Amino acid sequence: MFKPDFKKMELLPAIAQDAATGEVLMLAYMNEQAWNATLETGEAHYWSRSRQELWHKGGTSGHVQKVKSIRLDCDSDTVLLLIEQVGGAACHKGYKSCFYRELKDGQVRECSPVVFDPKEVYR
Amino acid sequence: MFKPDFKKMELLPAIAQDAATGEVLMLAYMNEQAWNATLETGEAHYWSRSRQELWHKGGTSGHVQKVKSIRLDCDSDTVLLLIEQVGGAACHKGYKSCFYRELKDGQVRECSPVVFDPKEVYR
Repeated sequence: MFKPDFKKMELLPAIAQDAATGEVLMLAYMNEQAWNATLETGEAHYWSRSRQELWHKGGTSGHVQKVKSIRLDCDSDTVLLLIEQVGGAACHKGYKSCFYRELKDGQVRECSPVVFDPKEVYR
Repeated sequence: MFKPDFKKMELLPAIAQDAATGEVLMLAYMNEQAWNATLETGEAHYWSRSRQELWHKGGTSGHVQKVKSIRLDCDSDTVLLLIEQVGGAACHKGYKSCFYRELKDGQVRECSPVVFDPKEVYR
């Protein structure tokens, strides 16, 4: 059956990857409720660990993640969502990807473009 | 400082992504020891939750993961390794990617090639 094994852990990591470019955008956590909501709506839902509630990513701003396909790993304990990020930025800091810092050849640099200014968006 | 926040959680998720193709290959967990070993050797090290020990991925078979760059997310609680998978398969089941099952347009299919036969490799 194509379903994560929530008996193993109540919260499982879910990776969001840009379906078009392959860029890894973020990682959040899903419980069974978030998994079901994602399947039912076709938009990524996670479980917010800080707010302890179901989190429809972009539900307020409109910057939702449209799910193009879902992959499961061999142990059924990690979810990979291939998505279209509406608005272009997955990161609350305004970057396209939450993974915007990179260590390469001994140097740390920013590796993801800024899409919006969080000071303008979160007032 | 470019370092995951292991004070937040002792074990943090680490995604391995093919540096050349962008394919997400696997997710495992790192503690501080695994992080340090990865930086020191340039090869991916994880913490094996099942064996409760430092895990040098491919250390026995030679199918190591050569780290090309490392990304950290905005909360410093997820690691993204951009790697070259020596031998071509990250999954112990012989697939290139552990994420070899995909749900798309209502159909489940395999989405990652088989690189080796696990019956031949793990005797």
